[in-house]
Amino acid sequence: MAVLALQEALLHGNAVQQRRAMAKAITLLESTRADHRAQGDELLTALLPHTGKALRLGISGVPGVGKSTFIETLGLYLIGQGHRVAVLAIDPSSSVSGGSILGDKTRMEQLSVQERAYIRPSPSSGTLGGVAEKTREAMLVCEAAGYDIVIVETVGVGQSETAVANMTDMFVLLQLPNAGDDLQAIKKGVMELADLVVINKADIDKNAATRAEAQITSSLRLLGQHGNPEHAHHNEALWHPKVVQISALLGQGVDGFWAAVSEFRQLQTTNGRLAVRREKQALSWMWERIDAGLKLAFRQHPQVQALLPHTLADVAAGRLAPSTAARNLLLAHSR
Amino acid sequence: MAVLALQEALLHGNAVQQRRAMAKAITLLESTRADHRAQGDELLTALLPHTGKALRLGISGVPGVGKSTFIETLGLYLIGQGHRVAVLAIDPSSSVSGGSILGDKTRMEQLSVQERAYIRPSPSSGTLGGVAEKTREAMLVCEAAGYDIVIVETVGVGQSETAVANMTDMFVLLQLPNAGDDLQAIKKGVMELADLVVINKADIDKNAATRAEAQITSSLRLLGQHGNPEHAHHNEALWHPKVVQISALLGQGVDGFWAAVSEFRQLQTTNGRLAVRREKQALSWMWERIDAGLKLAFRQHPQVQALLPHTLADVAAGRLAPSTAARNLLLAHSR
Repeated sequence: MAVLALQEALLHGNAVQQRRAMAKAITLLESTRADHRAQGDELLTALLPHTGKALRLGISGVPGVGKSTFIETLGLYLIGQGHRVAVLAIDPSSSVSGGSILGDKTRMEQLSVQERAYIRPSPSSGTLGGVAEKTREAMLVCEAAGYDIVIVETVGVGQSETAVANMTDMFVLLQLPNAGDDLQAIKKGVMELADLVVINKADIDKNAATRAEAQITSSLRLLGQHGNPEHAHHNEALWHPKVVQISALLGQGVDGFWAAVSEFRQLQTTNGRLAVRREKQALSWMWERIDAGLKLAFRQHPQVQALLPHTLADVAAGRLAPSTAARNLLLAHSR
Repeated sequence: MAVLALQEALLHGNAVQQRRAMAKAITLLESTRADHRAQGDELLTALLPHTGKALRLGISGVPGVGKSTFIETLGLYLIGQGHRVAVLAIDPSSSVSGGSILGDKTRMEQLSVQERAYIRPSPSSGTLGGVAEKTREAMLVCEAAGYDIVIVETVGVGQSETAVANMTDMFVLLQLPNAGDDLQAIKKGVMELADLVVINKADIDKNAATRAEAQITSSLRLLGQHGNPEHAHHNEALWHPKVVQISALLGQGVDGFWAAVSEFRQLQTTNGRLAVRREKQALSWMWERIDAGLKLAFRQHPQVQALLPHTLADVAAGRLAPSTAARNLLLAHSR
């Protein structure tokens, strides 16, 4: 399908045509072939004026926290309110292990059959940076096709939470009602990214959930004192990260969750922080891809490849100062 | 002074000649002039076989924790035991504010007059990466001159702790006996870097210090479960980060501190982790300098400079996809 036809189907097709076009567009954008890449860039540029209107929601949590159930419950709730919901995933382990986020229709069975829902698994190869880039581009495709809520989920292992927080308007951390869970999240710097913390499975032990809520609230307050500048000032035009309890399995607390999301959304729109956040994200995405491109070109440079094995051995053995080695290699690269 | 004379004075001079040569060598290595840089590389390569025998000790802590007093007390104690002690500093704020680590002889008054001590302030300009590189090179100069203990200190703000942990054999975090202090350190990922935590000013409130010790010990245990692979396994050949109380002002606890350092040193030498740590540090130092060099060359490229303002404006305004912008700029750079 030519780029123009793809664009037409994405923007103006019926539900069936849109879905098919979305799948094709995302596959095109995931391709590493140079001609596909050029077509992909052409398509992206054409779609861009039709993007940006969705609420971009990042969701993270360790395996077992109940992300799939939560997203399915939330997705059905939102569709019931007239929204169109796209679910994308970033699974940093997918290229190694086959992944801990099941990407296909075997999970979220009820959501996946909805006409107003679109679920796409994680791109399954490449570095985290590459996977994140594909997901950012897929997000734009979903927005152009009129999905007004895009959920990007990731597992709470590795660095993928930062990638997801850097491509969404709001970052939600799912926690279990276990003491000590929050320490792991603080340590990994994930708690600091959270605009909202959800304690899932609150039905199992109400007392534990209430204790966890108090503990996380206190941690968020302490972190806020020296933390994320978006949270730092005690100013009523700014947001203080909240903690809500839910039971995704029983469907309890979803309305409270959504009320908190909507409140945040309204605030960040009114005070201009949404526009600032998205502009920052776009620029840092560009620089991140430039850095990745520079590193790749360096490593593929014939002069560098010729020098590298010997240089690495000398540095490792302490015969060559690392800074001298770096200068030698950079010189070889610039010739 | 020619490189050969400098090298000779560093390796074989008397105390006065060595000191003068060290200052000159470090100034040469800090210079950004191309001819100085070439001489610096020549000198470094010649010195390299005479380096690596020192114990490299990183010390960090927030302003007010008592780093200077601690280092002075420790330095005098070590000189009393026959060691030669060099103190270097990485102050990420020095280029902006004049610095929060006073570099000169106005602090550590007793240590600075010792013939067997050498104190050098933080390089005062450039990025953190650049400052760290100068300090790494200064460390090699000190080692070549026969200093067998090199202390690299930094303030507990910003990313400089990671830089210091990445250039030393052992990373020590100074804490005050205040509850909640450890949470800040955990959040910033600094607690995780620590091989040893020192609770300073333990004399002021013994009960608070004991509570802080218990709390930090418990945090370190929790972090160790999923933390630094160097600490991760419950194996007697590996090290479990320790917590010790001292009062640097009263000189109490310094022998206990040094006993813990010596135990760690012996263990990491015996089990081979010291060699592994240093090899990893050398290689990551090389790659870090390459990345910095690639970024600088990119930004200075005339084609990139011509395209950049317009491209940044388009990306910020949402008219151009960041990934497309990155590819355009990389293409311009490679032409």
